[in-house]
Amino acid sequence: MLSLLDKYKDINDIKKMTLSQKKQFAGEIRKFLIDKVSRTGGHLASNLGVVELTLSLFTVFDLNQDKLIWDVGHQSYVHKILTGRKEKFDTLRQFGGISGFPKRCESIYDFFETGHSSTSISAALGMARARDLEHKHYNVVAVIGDGALTGGMALEALNDVGYRKTKLIIVLNDNQMSIAKNVGGLSKYLNRLRVDPKYDRLKKRVENKLKKIPNIGQGMAKYLERFKNGIKQMVVPGMFFEDMGIKYLGPIDGHNIKELTEVLNAAKKVNNPVIIHIITKKGKGYEFAEKNPGKFHGIGPFNCGSGELVKTSINTYSKTFGAEMCRLAEKDKKIVSITAAMRDGTGLKDFAEKFPERFFDVGIAEQHAVTLAAGMARAGLKPVFAVYSTFLQRAYDQLLHDVCMQKLPVVFAIDRAGIVGEDGETHQGIFDLSYLTEMPNMTVMAPKCMGELPYMIKWALEQNSPVAIRYPRGGDDIPLKPLKNFNTGSWEYISGRGKIALVAEGKMVQHAALAAQRLKDKFIDVKIISTCFVKPIDKIMLDKLIDEGSTIITIEDNVVRGGLGSYILEYVNSTGKKTRVINLGFKDEFVQHGKTDILYKLYGLDARGIENIVLKVGDLSRTF
Amino acid sequence: MLSLLDKYKDINDIKKMTLSQKKQFAGEIRKFLIDKVSRTGGHLASNLGVVELTLSLFTVFDLNQDKLIWDVGHQSYVHKILTGRKEKFDTLRQFGGISGFPKRCESIYDFFETGHSSTSISAALGMARARDLEHKHYNVVAVIGDGALTGGMALEALNDVGYRKTKLIIVLNDNQMSIAKNVGGLSKYLNRLRVDPKYDRLKKRVENKLKKIPNIGQGMAKYLERFKNGIKQMVVPGMFFEDMGIKYLGPIDGHNIKELTEVLNAAKKVNNPVIIHIITKKGKGYEFAEKNPGKFHGIGPFNCGSGELVKTSINTYSKTFGAEMCRLAEKDKKIVSITAAMRDGTGLKDFAEKFPERFFDVGIAEQHAVTLAAGMARAGLKPVFAVYSTFLQRAYDQLLHDVCMQKLPVVFAIDRAGIVGEDGETHQGIFDLSYLTEMPNMTVMAPKCMGELPYMIKWALEQNSPVAIRYPRGGDDIPLKPLKNFNTGSWEYISGRGKIALVAEGKMVQHAALAAQRLKDKFIDVKIISTCFVKPIDKIMLDKLIDEGSTIITIEDNVVRGGLGSYILEYVNSTGKKTRVINLGFKDEFVQHGKTDILYKLYGLDARGIENIVLKVGDLSRTF
Repeated sequence: MLSLLDKYKDINDIKKMTLSQKKQFAGEIRKFLIDKVSRTGGHLASNLGVVELTLSLFTVFDLNQDKLIWDVGHQSYVHKILTGRKEKFDTLRQFGGISGFPKRCESIYDFFETGHSSTSISAALGMARARDLEHKHYNVVAVIGDGALTGGMALEALNDVGYRKTKLIIVLNDNQMSIAKNVGGLSKYLNRLRVDPKYDRLKKRVENKLKKIPNIGQGMAKYLERFKNGIKQMVVPGMFFEDMGIKYLGPIDGHNIKELTEVLNAAKKVNNPVIIHIITKKGKGYEFAEKNPGKFHGIGPFNCGSGELVKTSINTYSKTFGAEMCRLAEKDKKIVSITAAMRDGTGLKDFAEKFPERFFDVGIAEQHAVTLAAGMARAGLKPVFAVYSTFLQRAYDQLLHDVCMQKLPVVFAIDRAGIVGEDGETHQGIFDLSYLTEMPNMTVMAPKCMGELPYMIKWALEQNSPVAIRYPRGGDDIPLKPLKNFNTGSWEYISGRGKIALVAEGKMVQHAALAAQRLKDKFIDVKIISTCFVKPIDKIMLDKLIDEGSTIITIEDNVVRGGLGSYILEYVNSTGKKTRVINLGFKDEFVQHGKTDILYKLYGLDARGIENIVLKVGDLSRTF
Repeated sequence: MLSLLDKYKDINDIKKMTLSQKKQFAGEIRKFLIDKVSRTGGHLASNLGVVELTLSLFTVFDLNQDKLIWDVGHQSYVHKILTGRKEKFDTLRQFGGISGFPKRCESIYDFFETGHSSTSISAALGMARARDLEHKHYNVVAVIGDGALTGGMALEALNDVGYRKTKLIIVLNDNQMSIAKNVGGLSKYLNRLRVDPKYDRLKKRVENKLKKIPNIGQGMAKYLERFKNGIKQMVVPGMFFEDMGIKYLGPIDGHNIKELTEVLNAAKKVNNPVIIHIITKKGKGYEFAEKNPGKFHGIGPFNCGSGELVKTSINTYSKTFGAEMCRLAEKDKKIVSITAAMRDGTGLKDFAEKFPERFFDVGIAEQHAVTLAAGMARAGLKPVFAVYSTFLQRAYDQLLHDVCMQKLPVVFAIDRAGIVGEDGETHQGIFDLSYLTEMPNMTVMAPKCMGELPYMIKWALEQNSPVAIRYPRGGDDIPLKPLKNFNTGSWEYISGRGKIALVAEGKMVQHAALAAQRLKDKFIDVKIISTCFVKPIDKIMLDKLIDEGSTIITIEDNVVRGGLGSYILEYVNSTGKKTRVINLGFKDEFVQHGKTDILYKLYGLDARGIENIVLKVGDLSRTF
């Protein structure tokens, strides 16, 4: 059926294909992608958008020497298919299987790993400068989306790119519909002009002609020059893109292999930095994805024929958060919400529709989002920044310096905290408890169940200082009774007796409860405590546990280093009393992709893992 | 002598002054600044540059309502003089005295605190949006330097500013000499055009005329439009500054009060975001500072008449680092260095001059710097990023995601780690041990004395994974014998016996040694151990200390939360053995400004503080 794809061996095959074969090949790759991703889930729309681009890049460049960096990297599936991983696509994003992002351990053609947005230009520039210093001659190509280009570090990199006129090719993969209209004759014409050595001469000639037009000519030319410079100075004062030597080619139809190949070949010959602006359609070639690229951006398993998700939607922390935000905002006009390009993922869709004036999507710009919130809080609003744990890492300094130092009442709704599963290493949210508890003036909370999240949000909005609430991806494992009232630094004693206390944060309380059930069957009773507050910790309750001679087992969906357990340990140790503390959490390593239940089991953070630790602890109190 | 300044009472006085009085006043303020800063030290050049700007802002705006945000904030001295802190200038940057940065506790006119670069537009936008949502009418003004504008978050903010056409005034304080030349008749003319309501009509008229010019006209107009858009799309794809409604006014002579007042008044009337581009001279009005603005940026006490520093220069960690980098780079061509606008501060001046092709100043862009280094390392170079501890906070995510995850051999030379003294809260480098030890694959080192730093740099460059070396501002207190060879995770036993071990990092080893001397006089012997490696920790040595029944006192120039002591505690606790650990370091709060010896004393981290802790510990071993 997929005659070309079935026969495909390695990257050299592409260079031998005719244009019409490549077109056929593109179609086969799309079918393959839709078929595979419909079963495993994954990033579909962005990959359907770069089929022709990937084929063109592989046609023009020699990846045995040239370096290709995919920004974010979720659009690297076609690249993976073409570089020896076609047969492994059934294992995509599954534990032990291939990752949804570029990984050096998978292929020599994944030269640099990505996952977070806007890093590719910096990394590529580093390689290009290394190449030049070592007098080598390979090409370096960064492929970056228009969304990622608004991230601060991409702009920092652009500002630096032309500094030494380092040869570098940046492909701007633009899938905003509004820009697609601009593809036309003039652009093609301009594009040919710009790669043509005759261009500079022509430009001079045109300018001279303009100057000769009586009265208006010279003034207008100056005016337009001035105008352009004004714009440029706002962005990079004192530096002009053209002066810096960043050539701009485009826009180009990103689904036209012939044009793409031509422009990439032209760019290869330029000895300066080049930006190629290509226009693609997210979800290209799959009706449902074209119509709804957002839904098919990152998607679970779905029915190919209908485009419907296989799983019916469950209730999630994100939805719960979104609903409560709407309810609270109805009553309090000071409440506003901020997202960094994650409106739907964070559950803010309804809020955005109901309160458009109080909803702020700043694009991929977490640093700006945090300090924007700080400014809003300082001026009397109640801002809530909803963000994935892994992306909040981008704003460490702004959290500390702009929010905590002034103790400003900003609420951070930290979604996807703890391990997130299939997205893997680059997306696990397992550092936030460490870096947030390090920050003076920050309050850190974690709901033990979905039902508790609304009460925490409400409580957080009533405080006069920063509050971070972290909660996991997805929903609950077991139902628990939500706590509805909170006192700063007071934990919840849930159940059990005996001299072993399971002190757990967030969803780990559910794992602890399940472990307690299993232990009950073995006639072992343990205390379960939910650390509603990861910071400040409950010193009164800890003192009580210490005085009772308890063994404290801390459980967190975070690295142990510097996290909840470490924080508790610091306090327990400071009392000078002898209490056994056991810290459960992730080891000092990055956690790979795979279903969360597999990963929790692997790291001993599931009910059975916790049970085993309890069984190993010496002095058990058999109370039954 | 300073007749106007002596009589000056409050901000209303400025509004009553004539233009010539303001000019005289500006001169008096300059004299005052030079006189005061020559005695206390501080930021001089930037403040001399904004005297007229500050007077003009105070003339046009009513700071009892309007909000004024100084980006970075080191140029807020004039603002401070004018808002009731004139008499306190003898205490500038001293413990208990006024801060060198805006502080809300000092004045209601310091509406938002700053210290790190590029935050002002985000904060100001937050306030402006809050104002609009609450139907208030005050003005919000952000003053940002051209250097700060290249920081990623400022660009993220600019991208967001025009999104809803929020009324906001951004003053771009441009002191690059190259741009000063552009001040001229055309700019003034354009400027008047742009604030004039007739401007839009005129623009249309001009464009229509252009189109009518036969042959070239229409094509050229389109071409120029296309060209402009191309540039804009590269920066903010699909969004055009003018479409977004950011009005550009300038360039304006930033030392001309009349012009400044006019343009600020005009900007006040615009209901959209405005950028006013003003040109100033750093160090303006003080010959030595004009000639050498870098030296007078942040300076110690100096002689007013000669411009010479009072203190003769001592040897510093920065200089030691710079010298070793030159030595190593001579031998190994793969070594390159990177700075984010801190060439001189980090000691890289000589390197930059000797190896211009291997030296990369990326501007204020720490995120980009880190990932650039990652790219260089991946392509075979040996990059060293020299950066102040407090500014590396900006690149938390890039450290974790782009360097540590791929275990890339980048060396981080972290200067100004620990407390830095007079710059205060925003500049103390007291979090790096916490956030760096949280990162898998990161090795963290700290030299106990300057002489050890070169050996650590050399060792770090030989590793095949990321290494961070943190060292303090200034030089040594006492001489110690440097260790010359290192084994990953092996600490150095320095001296002493007995059952108390002072386990210290970096310069704290010197404090520990001084404490040990004092204790010796009291016939108490303590062990001194230098944790050359803060990560990984020396488990063998710790096991030995545990087995010997030692009390371990950890000492670090960092917050206790999550730092070295916490890390050691995690390990000691994991052994299940009962060992007393006492963690010395900074409490969970921001540390104010003042001389470092005062601050160390205040937090019990000087020799006497350490001595006191030892004396309090119960089972002392009197070995003499």
